[in-house]
Amino acid sequence: MHLTKEDIQALNRVKRLNLINSITGIKPANLIGTQDKARKTNLAIFSSVVHLGSDPALIGMILRPHSDVRRHTHENILETGVYTINHIPQSFIQQAHYTSAKFDKEVSEFKRCGFTEEYISDFEAPFIKESSIKIGLKLVEQVPIKANDTMLLVGEVQHLILPEEAVSKSGYIDLGSIQDVGISGLNSYYSLEKIAQFPYARPEETPEFDHA
Amino acid sequence: MHLTKEDIQALNRVKRLNLINSITGIKPANLIGTQDKARKTNLAIFSSVVHLGSDPALIGMILRPHSDVRRHTHENILETGVYTINHIPQSFIQQAHYTSAKFDKEVSEFKRCGFTEEYISDFEAPFIKESSIKIGLKLVEQVPIKANDTMLLVGEVQHLILPEEAVSKSGYIDLGSIQDVGISGLNSYYSLEKIAQFPYARPEETPEFDHA
Repeated sequence: MHLTKEDIQALNRVKRLNLINSITGIKPANLIGTQDKARKTNLAIFSSVVHLGSDPALIGMILRPHSDVRRHTHENILETGVYTINHIPQSFIQQAHYTSAKFDKEVSEFKRCGFTEEYISDFEAPFIKESSIKIGLKLVEQVPIKANDTMLLVGEVQHLILPEEAVSKSGYIDLGSIQDVGISGLNSYYSLEKIAQFPYARPEETPEFDHA
Repeated sequence: MHLTKEDIQALNRVKRLNLINSITGIKPANLIGTQDKARKTNLAIFSSVVHLGSDPALIGMILRPHSDVRRHTHENILETGVYTINHIPQSFIQQAHYTSAKFDKEVSEFKRCGFTEEYISDFEAPFIKESSIKIGLKLVEQVPIKANDTMLLVGEVQHLILPEEAVSKSGYIDLGSIQDVGISGLNSYYSLEKIAQFPYARPEETPEFDHA
């Protein structure tokens, strides 16, 4: 099947949304935890979290335009300057999915969707007790994407909380062993199984695959 | 285990690189196909591809700073204005991984790593014959990220090539059925199995998870 730009534009809105959200491949499943100055908490599922760099440790995420609807996550991050990224354990995917409903600002998705707030001292954003891997970030940059009025939010890692036994001596995490999940499109969830690990690739050590 | 920003900075470089590249969760596994004006092709593995929007269909990817090393992918995209994103089939992960070796500009990773170039008319960038899902993009925006001198490259989908039987009536793709893979960190590969699908979440239809 070959769809051109024009074919894609001619699809009905829901099919285009589902298809184009699926074509980049598997996406990470994370819940973003925030609170406002009045300590009202918010939790929202994001599949657009992306690694930006290790030194300093920077992580990005894409925010939709404010025009559609109020964006509590963004408003809270601007108010407090901090937020958390929490992995979604496999046994909590249904609850995590429903944080995407447009609840009123007065409703905390922590309580409504059955997650437990967890705090560490001197850090204003709520972590999720039920998550295996939790990251506390400070907002360092907001990068506007003109092409469609979205925004790349850049955060610097301030805190990293994870099970010691999940981290190998070299710093790798086996996402299968901690029951991590991935997302495809807007609503499909996948379990992960590690099938291979390869060394750092150097030209002179690269096997000959030349098939011509 | 709780690591602060200072603890992370104090890790040795390789452990920090592996750990921070792992903490965002599973990442999509894609090969970026390009060629320069002289039709020398290039193929490079990227795990930072991210969905930006469906209408128009926009996809982002993160480029490392040019300072480290020559970036053939970026140079080629600037020369021709187009590039391809190709999913990595499970049976080709080793070959795909080795495209990350820093081969000389004269070496095409297509030939060196055993992939077959495929072209469609009036589109200058090479697709991968062996891939299940292939996307042809036109560069529309380069967004500098000041915090660490990286860049978000924004492309608009011009062509989408995929197996018709992999797409459901509503536009979903089962990534397990097409043997898609995910990446963790810099060198670990995962198979994917769909475990759940939930409806679009509306507040009034959201089950009660309140555990308090």
